[in-house]
Amino acid sequence: MNSIDEKLKTLGIVLPTPMKPVANYVPWVKSGNMVYISGQGAVVEGKVQYPGKLGVTVSLEDGAQSARLTCINVLAQLREAADGDLSKVKRIVKLVGFVACTPEFTDQPKVINGASDLMVEVFGEKGRHARSAVGVPSLPMNLSVEIEAVVELE
Amino acid sequence: MNSIDEKLKTLGIVLPTPMKPVANYVPWVKSGNMVYISGQGAVVEGKVQYPGKLGVTVSLEDGAQSARLTCINVLAQLREAADGDLSKVKRIVKLVGFVACTPEFTDQPKVINGASDLMVEVFGEKGRHARSAVGVPSLPMNLSVEIEAVVELE
Amino acid sequence: MNSIDEKLKTLGIVLPTPMKPVANYVPWVKSGNMVYISGQGAVVEGKVQYPGKLGVTVSLEDGAQSARLTCINVLAQLREAADGDLSKVKRIVKLVGFVACTPEFTDQPKVINGASDLMVEVFGEKGRHARSAVGVPSLPMNLSVEIEAVVELE
Repeated sequence: MNSIDEKLKTLGIVLPTPMKPVANYVPWVKSGNMVYISGQGAVVEGKVQYPGKLGVTVSLEDGAQSARLTCINVLAQLREAADGDLSKVKRIVKLVGFVACTPEFTDQPKVINGASDLMVEVFGEKGRHARSAVGVPSLPMNLSVEIEAVVELE
Repeated sequence: MNSIDEKLKTLGIVLPTPMKPVANYVPWVKSGNMVYISGQGAVVEGKVQYPGKLGVTVSLEDGAQSARLTCINVLAQLREAADGDLSKVKRIVKLVGFVACTPEFTDQPKVINGASDLMVEVFGEKGRHARSAVGVPSLPMNLSVEIEAVVELE
Repeated sequence: MNSIDEKLKTLGIVLPTPMKPVANYVPWVKSGNMVYISGQGAVVEGKVQYPGKLGVTVSLEDGAQSARLTCINVLAQLREAADGDLSKVKRIVKLVGFVACTPEFTDQPKVINGASDLMVEVFGEKGRHARSAVGVPSLPMNLSVEIEAVVELE
């Protein structure tokens, strides 16, 4: 068991079987030592968790949980891209977090922190990433959060 | 005629002269063997096709056609970036698809499939890409779809 | 004083101390010779400039100024990523500009030009970048514009 698997175990996180894309694309592409991960959401066993919008049907706390679950799905894809070994991650380079919300909602950073915090919990310094967080009117499958990632492997 | 040009001919697709940007930027930048393509839209001879929003003035079918036309414009830019030879494409790495829509619309993946399907038709396995699809309230020139791309060349 | 510092002086631009992120991430990550810069906004000494939305509370002129100020903050981060020497910039590769706006607003390119024009003023040909500009319903801290960047260093 490598150090990242141990960390996940300590955190009580079991990575799921990576989701299949809902359309004609792939969940990740490796180009050189960079991995580009398709937009993920908080889907558990085929069911969307915390669906809806921040500012109206989803609370800030639930939004952050949605981002955390989304990040777990990002990690599941990343593990596959890294041939099953997350200790090959050199750096979580960048996340873009899209938050479904009302036009009045401006706390996107607090929502996406649910994902950013988990990346740092799991990878330490290597998990500290560049990030954008923006509002959107709606997301696929009524997700409240969608996150895409760029990761550098050793 | 290379294999990709033949494929385009089979599909009945004639790539247009690449559009000029509507502002002070360039349609693509090559950095190493990576090509970053600016957000494109379904513009044919200067006229926006399928303008408007999904969920209100643009149907799902028209949205997917908008994405397909947008993808053709991405390919026109890409051909120029590849010195006129699309067979130099090693991998379509990533697309981000922005769909102008109402807050209730959640079928962004079906819209962006119009582009993803074309990439796979044209490039086969090399066309299978990472992807994000999100809703936005509005796009430049009242486009219904805007797509940006990252592509790796040989 | 290098050529870029001279250019900034000519333009009357003083780069601020780079802003700290508002959450658990970092303002930029260097991966190889590429710099990924987190989404920035028009924040001056902790205060958001030109807050609100295009199409309702922020004019086109103010929106372009918001994008220009945002670009100055991108440059402040970039200078730090380039060890204090902006003449190491090989190419501004790509900007993504998110514009907070009403569903009716379609002039996102004119807004983001405030940033694109500045990049070309400062870096000349090296400043010409790929770009996407899209509308969003809302942004963190009620920013009217958020811009993220990918830059190649020598």
